[in-house]
Amino acid sequence: MAELYKGESINSDYCGRDILSVDQFDRRSVDMLFREVDATATLVETEGGTDLLRRKFIANIFFEPSTRTDFSFRFAALRHGASVEGPHGIQFSSVSKGESLQDTVRSFEQYADLTVIRHPQIGAVAVAAAVSEKPVINGGDGAGEHPTQALLDLYTIRRKLGAIDGKKITMIGDLKNGRTVHSLAKLLSLYDVEINYVSPQELQMPEEYVAALSARGVSQDSMRTLDGPLPETDVLYVTRVQGERFLDQAEYHRLKDIYRITPEVLEKAKSDMIVMHPLPRVGEIATEVDTDPRAAYFDQMKYGMYVRMGLLALVLGRSVLPPALQK
Amino acid sequence: MAELYKGESINSDYCGRDILSVDQFDRRSVDMLFREVDATATLVETEGGTDLLRRKFIANIFFEPSTRTDFSFRFAALRHGASVEGPHGIQFSSVSKGESLQDTVRSFEQYADLTVIRHPQIGAVAVAAAVSEKPVINGGDGAGEHPTQALLDLYTIRRKLGAIDGKKITMIGDLKNGRTVHSLAKLLSLYDVEINYVSPQELQMPEEYVAALSARGVSQDSMRTLDGPLPETDVLYVTRVQGERFLDQAEYHRLKDIYRITPEVLEKAKSDMIVMHPLPRVGEIATEVDTDPRAAYFDQMKYGMYVRMGLLALVLGRSVLPPALQK
Amino acid sequence: MAELYKGESINSDYCGRDILSVDQFDRRSVDMLFREVDATATLVETEGGTDLLRRKFIANIFFEPSTRTDFSFRFAALRHGASVEGPHGIQFSSVSKGESLQDTVRSFEQYADLTVIRHPQIGAVAVAAAVSEKPVINGGDGAGEHPTQALLDLYTIRRKLGAIDGKKITMIGDLKNGRTVHSLAKLLSLYDVEINYVSPQELQMPEEYVAALSARGVSQDSMRTLDGPLPETDVLYVTRVQGERFLDQAEYHRLKDIYRITPEVLEKAKSDMIVMHPLPRVGEIATEVDTDPRAAYFDQMKYGMYVRMGLLALVLGRSVLPPALQK
Repeated sequence: MAELYKGESINSDYCGRDILSVDQFDRRSVDMLFREVDATATLVETEGGTDLLRRKFIANIFFEPSTRTDFSFRFAALRHGASVEGPHGIQFSSVSKGESLQDTVRSFEQYADLTVIRHPQIGAVAVAAAVSEKPVINGGDGAGEHPTQALLDLYTIRRKLGAIDGKKITMIGDLKNGRTVHSLAKLLSLYDVEINYVSPQELQMPEEYVAALSARGVSQDSMRTLDGPLPETDVLYVTRVQGERFLDQAEYHRLKDIYRITPEVLEKAKSDMIVMHPLPRVGEIATEVDTDPRAAYFDQMKYGMYVRMGLLALVLGRSVLPPALQK
Repeated sequence: MAELYKGESINSDYCGRDILSVDQFDRRSVDMLFREVDATATLVETEGGTDLLRRKFIANIFFEPSTRTDFSFRFAALRHGASVEGPHGIQFSSVSKGESLQDTVRSFEQYADLTVIRHPQIGAVAVAAAVSEKPVINGGDGAGEHPTQALLDLYTIRRKLGAIDGKKITMIGDLKNGRTVHSLAKLLSLYDVEINYVSPQELQMPEEYVAALSARGVSQDSMRTLDGPLPETDVLYVTRVQGERFLDQAEYHRLKDIYRITPEVLEKAKSDMIVMHPLPRVGEIATEVDTDPRAAYFDQMKYGMYVRMGLLALVLGRSVLPPALQK
Repeated sequence: MAELYKGESINSDYCGRDILSVDQFDRRSVDMLFREVDATATLVETEGGTDLLRRKFIANIFFEPSTRTDFSFRFAALRHGASVEGPHGIQFSSVSKGESLQDTVRSFEQYADLTVIRHPQIGAVAVAAAVSEKPVINGGDGAGEHPTQALLDLYTIRRKLGAIDGKKITMIGDLKNGRTVHSLAKLLSLYDVEINYVSPQELQMPEEYVAALSARGVSQDSMRTLDGPLPETDVLYVTRVQGERFLDQAEYHRLKDIYRITPEVLEKAKSDMIVMHPLPRVGEIATEVDTDPRAAYFDQMKYGMYVRMGLLALVLGRSVLPPALQK
């Protein structure tokens, strides 16, 4: 479907569109989505789910396993009354027989109304979308995009803090290799926010992202420690230091714990700030933090399911809202 | 269930029967199925699915992975409102503990109303069906049978060309090892067709199939190149040269591309013929052919889901048609 | 949830509780469950299933594969109208990234209303339950507990023989390593039964279990051969000699067949006794026994699905029975 609007904003119309990149979104389209998600969350919390997507069939095509994204989409589909099936990484007999990505996707779209695709290579999902007649949602393509993660991060900030404009966001950890913070930073640039980047020299936010946000007028600052920005921080976004992305395992072990968030660290933070993490974590946040009311990372996962419910609905041309409230 | 009718035609009655082999079918039973499939396709295309198999539970037991067959059956079940679950190859902890095929199948039939079984060994599905109290559908047993593939191939011809009688079918590629063409040839012998076999010497249609079809009066011819039969061909059935079936990989690489179908090749074909392929393909049909209206292989996959919906319904004793139209 | 009642009997109230151990149960809670299961079985056998758990969402989190337990829970959920999803062993990308058990479970509970957890380590499921806000059902934790297996075994005895009190149960095989017989013995100690343990010296029922049952007044006897107890036995419970638990494979092969049950062996048994086995079997019961009406092991599997349907319903606060009949 991608040729219809690639590079454009999708604006008010999700129906039948691919969701490939955070670059598709503007404030209007994000607002529309979040209104849908708010109403969906209420329905899930009161009634467990809806029948909105009854007789809709979704194929989850995961060319690499991703426990969280895969099952978040699966439960999102099920809670809207849709059906969902699809292979997880290991099960691709046809791929092992030499089938192309395009053929695999075109095959699954014969069975389904929408496909969610996860792939280890940058750009692979856009390639698949270009040949697909059904809408495609990018479930993450290697070091490339993971738009639904960025949307759920943004929704978590909005829902927990009531607004996005005016907030000070501090991102900490591996900002070089973390796809999540790259996509989130881009989305945040639609809003009036300040962003601090806290990382070791080796793992800084890449210059291309900093430059892109500067061009959109976002105030950004980089530093080596959390001490400076923490007292003013509204959102502390902690990232996993992903061992699998390091060639030098000694460097990995040296760096992985130096920005560890503990209850002691949070003593200097505001009482109404939130701590986020895309999960899984491997020690970047002490488990003692879990019971702190500022720990938002498990709610973040739940909101992820709601955001995906909203996206599935809008892309499939449906809404839990009456038409007057959808725009 | 198999003892009830093994070796007989199932004729007008699918209810409660196993689907093990194309040999079970005659024109009457195929017609009955295809009427069901036509009506089912219309319902899927207008309403997404049906509730025909609500509260029916299907176990997909795949002793080897098969992306396409597995998910075709899964979406078929779901689109008829049934539930489907089952292990894919790798997940068989009980098999790794030494459990017999028969015990695995008898266990799953305690949970389900019908089982679909895929197994790497010839005859394994019939063995399983012999001990099973619930209907079994053969999802492919090694180099043996794959009756639902042959039925979907036949349905594709009928649906795309309006009829099967009178058509000239040309099969090309690895006709020796291709289970698909063997089963399809058998089914085609119920009709008044002409079949051409185009293959290298080493990969010819086995003599036993040629003899069986001759005995039923089917006109057949074998040749080395496509040049002769192509201009008269109504159905060009292209097969994958399956690398995993070759002991000599050099021979595989020599043969795999010599019958490659390209837009240039198709210039000599009729405008209303169709090109079929069981998929996955690995180069036998150039991707440039995909946009040719004669390329039927992706529709073939969709029709596969419809055919399996029809089979599941009839075997479970249900139909989307009123009783008067079922016979 | 576990802190609410750990170590106590759950008595009349399953709603919102974890199911971690057979030690939770007393006769009253077992009776309540079995009334629910009886009514559920009738509904499945007449109508295929129910909508009792519509809009309930269950996560099956299997840290090791277990074909039978996994799919028994899955079909149980589906036959009650619930939805079920979750990873099977191999698919845990987040675990391979170093995520803790607790984080994995807390993540899935954001999506689901109840989690079923299988784990290879003793105590792991209780650890998970302690951090979980949603009810957890133990699907087996290594050499630890497997309460739903013990409950289905007990239900099978009650259903096949009409009662449990007064019965003579003979357990045979590997009674040292068999988690199944340990849990069943504990549950049986709630009743007035006699238990015989038939095993080689090396594989005897551990003294701790024998002592615990003695303290509750259960009459127990140990012996090397089946000859003595067989003629009086009401329930012959055969266990798999689990090769994977032996360090010495020679010892395994020496012991595995010495207590093999054949039609000849059963000639000395009562006509109204039953033969049970948790399956999978690897030769402990000859397949010739399968057609003997006393062979109960396939029905045992079906009853397992019914028992899990009953547990899922009660834990989720629902019942197929009118309120007056639930207590």
